[in-house]
Amino acid sequence: MKKLLLISNSTNAGEEYLLWPQTYIKDFLDKYEVKKVLFIPFAGVTVNWDNYSNKVRAVFKKLGFELESIHDSPTPLKSVFEAEAIVIGGGNTFNLVHHLHKTGLMEAIAERTESGLPYIGWSAGSNVACPSLKTTNDMPIIQPESFDSLSLVPFQINPHYLDAHPDGHGGETREERILEFLEVNRNIYVAGLRESTLLEIEGASVVLKGKHACRVFHHGNIAMESMPGSKLDFLLH
Amino acid sequence: MKKLLLISNSTNAGEEYLLWPQTYIKDFLDKYEVKKVLFIPFAGVTVNWDNYSNKVRAVFKKLGFELESIHDSPTPLKSVFEAEAIVIGGGNTFNLVHHLHKTGLMEAIAERTESGLPYIGWSAGSNVACPSLKTTNDMPIIQPESFDSLSLVPFQINPHYLDAHPDGHGGETREERILEFLEVNRNIYVAGLRESTLLEIEGASVVLKGKHACRVFHHGNIAMESMPGSKLDFLLH
Repeated sequence: MKKLLLISNSTNAGEEYLLWPQTYIKDFLDKYEVKKVLFIPFAGVTVNWDNYSNKVRAVFKKLGFELESIHDSPTPLKSVFEAEAIVIGGGNTFNLVHHLHKTGLMEAIAERTESGLPYIGWSAGSNVACPSLKTTNDMPIIQPESFDSLSLVPFQINPHYLDAHPDGHGGETREERILEFLEVNRNIYVAGLRESTLLEIEGASVVLKGKHACRVFHHGNIAMESMPGSKLDFLLH
Repeated sequence: MKKLLLISNSTNAGEEYLLWPQTYIKDFLDKYEVKKVLFIPFAGVTVNWDNYSNKVRAVFKKLGFELESIHDSPTPLKSVFEAEAIVIGGGNTFNLVHHLHKTGLMEAIAERTESGLPYIGWSAGSNVACPSLKTTNDMPIIQPESFDSLSLVPFQINPHYLDAHPDGHGGETREERILEFLEVNRNIYVAGLRESTLLEIEGASVVLKGKHACRVFHHGNIAMESMPGSKLDFLLH
């Protein structure tokens, strides 16, 4: 049974790092009796991976969990196959996908998560749980071997989904970008996950949690707003 | 001698389509005695290419120029080799690069422009004049054969460059995204082209024109603001 916690964003503006999702992370890991997580810092670009994993480790330690970072492991594939849970943090999705392909960890993580290993991702880490990185907001700073991602779910997430558009700016709105995606990818749902929201997936069940509605897009249909607490199981069909 | 007009954005908010750069486009084409341009609509995704090229044709006609769209040509490569000028419009950069590679037009356009064919691009059409699409703001809705682009200039442009950041939003600012790019691409300049600005390039000369300063980034240096009228020839070194 799949066990996924897919979080839009680590941190709300003005709050301390990883504050808002802490209760959800703790409850999720406690439910599956996880004591130690394996962290993947590959989305970090301007932060080095030691600093990034230490910052995340401090939060997880406070919540009562140990954390090993994959970049400290002499045998990364073995670490994945021995892990109690996988945690993938945010940053640049292209950098993340590039390193997951380059190291062979993409397949290893997908295989273990398919067979029930608990998985937590935020921002790029939620995006990479989808079939591809094609709904990222990030700049394509590096060309990955492929856009294919973990495919832990059959739909796409757009993390940090936002309605606002800077005044007087001629660029596309987020909704327009997603409609472009749907024009060339017609048989797939896109969940626009606003900040302070997450999707919790357990087997065939998908529940939206957090402070805001989620905007769900599909080619040829009107976008749909789902309230927190909503069951979104149809996203898995 | 290279002849390039690289425009940040087609249209300012609230204005009619392609209004602000019209004088620049007309002066540029008149200078090189162009009567007819070849238009590339491949960045269009939610607009079909007939409608897109008709919309652009109406503007060029008003300015006194004929326009042929490449998607109407039975022999697209021949059309490139016979063109008096190339015009590439905005939309989704990944879609544009995908089709330029797929059709073999990437090499043909690069070759002709290298040998002095006038080239006008806006938004995605400016980005694609650079070595790669790696500084686009667009969503990666389709995986192109490669991120490599026309390389008409040795630096990167970030079109629609903006300073604003939506209130309370936890995503990266544009500057942060460009600094991520520079972290993994250290020996290249990035010109953040604000709306209502363009770069005119003639041989070894680069001049910023329009209403705003341009923000120039390089790894390890403080970002630099250059005023309209500035010579930015160093970008070609």
